[in-house]
Amino acid sequence: MKSIYMDYAATTPVDKEVINEMIPYFDNKYGNASSIHSYGREAFDAIEISRDQVAKLINANPDEIIFTSGGTESDNLAIKGVAYKNKDKKDAKGFQIITCAIEHPAVLETCKHLEKNGFKVKYLPVDKYGIINLDVLEKTISKDTFMISVMFANNEIGTIEPIGEIGKIARRNNILFHTDAVQAVTKNLIDVNKLNIDLLSISSHKIYGPKGIGALFIRKGVKLHTLMHGGGHENGLRSSTLNTSGIVGLGKACELGQKRMNKDVAHMKNLRDLLIKNILTIEECYLNGHPEKRLANNSHFRFTAVEGESLNLMLDEKGIAAATGSACSSKKLQASHVLLAIGLKPEEAHGSLRFTLGRMNTKEEVEYVSNLLPGIVKKLRKMSPLWNR
Amino acid sequence: MKSIYMDYAATTPVDKEVINEMIPYFDNKYGNASSIHSYGREAFDAIEISRDQVAKLINANPDEIIFTSGGTESDNLAIKGVAYKNKDKKDAKGFQIITCAIEHPAVLETCKHLEKNGFKVKYLPVDKYGIINLDVLEKTISKDTFMISVMFANNEIGTIEPIGEIGKIARRNNILFHTDAVQAVTKNLIDVNKLNIDLLSISSHKIYGPKGIGALFIRKGVKLHTLMHGGGHENGLRSSTLNTSGIVGLGKACELGQKRMNKDVAHMKNLRDLLIKNILTIEECYLNGHPEKRLANNSHFRFTAVEGESLNLMLDEKGIAAATGSACSSKKLQASHVLLAIGLKPEEAHGSLRFTLGRMNTKEEVEYVSNLLPGIVKKLRKMSPLWNR
Repeated sequence: MKSIYMDYAATTPVDKEVINEMIPYFDNKYGNASSIHSYGREAFDAIEISRDQVAKLINANPDEIIFTSGGTESDNLAIKGVAYKNKDKKDAKGFQIITCAIEHPAVLETCKHLEKNGFKVKYLPVDKYGIINLDVLEKTISKDTFMISVMFANNEIGTIEPIGEIGKIARRNNILFHTDAVQAVTKNLIDVNKLNIDLLSISSHKIYGPKGIGALFIRKGVKLHTLMHGGGHENGLRSSTLNTSGIVGLGKACELGQKRMNKDVAHMKNLRDLLIKNILTIEECYLNGHPEKRLANNSHFRFTAVEGESLNLMLDEKGIAAATGSACSSKKLQASHVLLAIGLKPEEAHGSLRFTLGRMNTKEEVEYVSNLLPGIVKKLRKMSPLWNR
Repeated sequence: MKSIYMDYAATTPVDKEVINEMIPYFDNKYGNASSIHSYGREAFDAIEISRDQVAKLINANPDEIIFTSGGTESDNLAIKGVAYKNKDKKDAKGFQIITCAIEHPAVLETCKHLEKNGFKVKYLPVDKYGIINLDVLEKTISKDTFMISVMFANNEIGTIEPIGEIGKIARRNNILFHTDAVQAVTKNLIDVNKLNIDLLSISSHKIYGPKGIGALFIRKGVKLHTLMHGGGHENGLRSSTLNTSGIVGLGKACELGQKRMNKDVAHMKNLRDLLIKNILTIEECYLNGHPEKRLANNSHFRFTAVEGESLNLMLDEKGIAAATGSACSSKKLQASHVLLAIGLKPEEAHGSLRFTLGRMNTKEEVEYVSNLLPGIVKKLRKMSPLWNR
């Protein structure tokens, strides 16, 4: 049977070069980076090289990067860390956070948690493509707003937000700006200085690095509380023995991602556009998300009178890995909050399917999937009480 | 030059068998365990096998194990998670936690954080060996006490606490009992049921597993708040894409640790006792910690009129990796809180050195270090203004 992976937004395989870089840190250079002996110094030095590689990818300084266990922790640390720090300040501006309706649960659930703990959160609506309205953002800002958190690009529908404009608005109003760039890094040129970003979340396993490691960019001068108390690692911001092999893997993944960005993006865009063109020939099939302002690797469709879940399962039986929404919520039965926010009805949201491409996909794979899908849709529609044509 | 590693309490190399188990999950079985397709299910299944392996090591049920990023996160989650949950209860018993003066910073700093947030914390003193007094514990318990957190064995001086007795007291008083068993697992037989433990922290990189992964045992029925908001992984207790390769590594390390425990412990005890016997022949050298109730691999000494830091550096120059205290605090200049708590003066605390042994150490290495150390101590004492003999 074929084995075609088109779920790169859920996770990516670790690049061979990344694995090779990591392996010595398991059983050879295994010291604890906090130890003062040679084993420790060797780990420490490797970590600092990685910090530099991560920083370079987004034009930050290495001392503005701290390592976390992944994108979720980075989002939690950025938002709660700043929020609780702000609460402690005697001259706190206020307690309002502005975020957006289609954020990843790591941001949304963190904001909901803060709402239960004395903070006010405004959730910006999005248009039918998933883009926030900058005028609404400006009007939502009040003297109480201390932070804006808007994702760089959406993990489900791939829509890229107007980050540069949001950054300008945030800076002009002296508000901190956090962006979850988990899906965007290595697919979009990101310069945290040009874009006025103050905090930025990175996950390793979305960019051909290992799982269980991530990073948070924290602009120099931005103060935040730690979420992990202990030995005081990472300047007291994230206690826990540093995960040397994971960090080395993330660093290498960032380096490779930067080096290969142009080529990878061109490759993925080509395949994505071919896939979109082919699949949209299916009757009553529509593209979700913005036609141009979307991630190079993302295609997201909805099909009238078909369950995305059933499509996904039937594709799986043919060896094809796709997704209905984000992997995080794929075992839940609620309609995607992202699809509802762009105005889809629940039944439309449930009829959606995501293909996210990666470095290893080929034109042959795209053609194979394009040829297979119409038959599956037809078969499912035959069984559907909602399809009467 | 020789290369002798005797800092296994700081971290361990990853076992070859563990590495081999992990590697397929980097670039072959790389699915996101939350995905419903075959790649996802493969990862999910591997994680459940690991959960079982971790559970078996401490005689828990697999559904009582959740995965974290390490010992520090496990401690934070156990203590803050229970504390904040308790705060939300309308029928909360009260807000007092009892812990002990020589806990790891992951517990101590978490408790200090809770003190700033409305909780009362009692820090039990310890005797000159580092053991808490059970009568004092009983007397400290009040109607407000909802949790006791006492480490299984100390990471610096190796002292093993009377966990069975503490568990009985906790159970009798209907108080939750958490123990940081990061140094103890695979070196001590641990049965969470026999010992009446409700929450237990495990770290992978102390037991020949990879860094960046740990586990928390949570007895069925014990409720706690999450610290990591997001996609709702691990039954909502720890959101974040599951770190499959790390989890597989931890599972294998637990399995191997259990299988090899008797042999490893016997080997380490032999070497440790030889090392202690040899080193105590040095003039004005003393053993810190309990002579018998100590970890199989821990030896911890103090030397009159010598800085442990200098000893450590000179050993490092000879290729020998030891430590002065915990790796977490090895770059700080304060005297160890553990050594002060057992009654040492700051200058005595600063004159301390820890050798922690592992599976790979040999008798030859122990003899080599034993033969080398007296000369180094002598040399340093010659330069010391405090040594006038």
